[in-house]
Amino acid sequence: MKKFEEKTYETETIYQGKIVQLNIDSVTLPDGNTSKRELIKHPGAVAVIALTDEGKLVCVEQYRKPLEKSLVEIPAGKLEAGEDPKTCALRELEEETGYTSDDLELVTSFYTSPGFADEIVHLYFTDEIKTMEKRPDGDEDEFVELLEISLEEAEKLEKEQRIHDAKTAYAILYLKLRAAR
Amino acid sequence: MKKFEEKTYETETIYQGKIVQLNIDSVTLPDGNTSKRELIKHPGAVAVIALTDEGKLVCVEQYRKPLEKSLVEIPAGKLEAGEDPKTCALRELEEETGYTSDDLELVTSFYTSPGFADEIVHLYFTDEIKTMEKRPDGDEDEFVELLEISLEEAEKLEKEQRIHDAKTAYAILYLKLRAAR
Repeated sequence: MKKFEEKTYETETIYQGKIVQLNIDSVTLPDGNTSKRELIKHPGAVAVIALTDEGKLVCVEQYRKPLEKSLVEIPAGKLEAGEDPKTCALRELEEETGYTSDDLELVTSFYTSPGFADEIVHLYFTDEIKTMEKRPDGDEDEFVELLEISLEEAEKLEKEQRIHDAKTAYAILYLKLRAAR
Repeated sequence: MKKFEEKTYETETIYQGKIVQLNIDSVTLPDGNTSKRELIKHPGAVAVIALTDEGKLVCVEQYRKPLEKSLVEIPAGKLEAGEDPKTCALRELEEETGYTSDDLELVTSFYTSPGFADEIVHLYFTDEIKTMEKRPDGDEDEFVELLEISLEEAEKLEKEQRIHDAKTAYAILYLKLRAAR
């Protein structure tokens, strides 16, 4: 759908980083006027709602520099160039938690911030996980701690804002709906 | 919580735009090594799950330049400097839809992309809306079209990826859970 399309007549790349690229697009609006759009390009990401045999949600706690605090989140990570989202989801689950699965099912995908960024998150579910003999190495600059929590504990952490991100908030609603059925 | 804190020893501001600011922070990691973090500063946003008297979800369709397509989303917008989130939510509801409400209730808030951005969305709910005599003017460079859809229609649009963003995906689960109770 291209309703109200904004046509670009000039793109300026301000910054090309390791993760994000910042472009300023000059655009023509539907009424013929012009404007500028600040656009963040991102490689996309995956996340996994993984339940243990006891029905606990597998989470990781990590420091989130943009917020200057640590959050408890479902395992997640960025897509590498050309990587299949499901392959990436399994890799991130293994690297961050030491669990693996033969049974990742796509729940949905969503853009996190469509107003200024093209980041998309592909979200998977599994309740069939097993511990790996050896957890593979992840990013060398990433420090995470594993937690396994009940849905009730997850809701408590959300109230305390230690769970405080979109994909994990979505995961909690997903599990509440699953429990209500 | 400051677990695995990354201490900043240098901040470089690459860009200060109308909406986003891009900083590169040089940080010391928990193991003493150093790294760089690409950080997007954003003013934060609000969104509203608003139901009509017939139980339809109020949505707007608009062009999302980062995705180069239009999306159907719940009404939303950016916080102005110092603006109270609830005041902002009411303002955006009024400007984008021509509905107003005396009864906005906070559902939750979440960071959309905690890995690279500090954008937070404050999400409100109301099933008490009324049509305004005159819809206030919104941003002059914003073009939106009003839609009122059933939950079933929303799920269909989500399957077709015309609904495809985190806050609206969350809203759909929220309404499904509400209907299941």
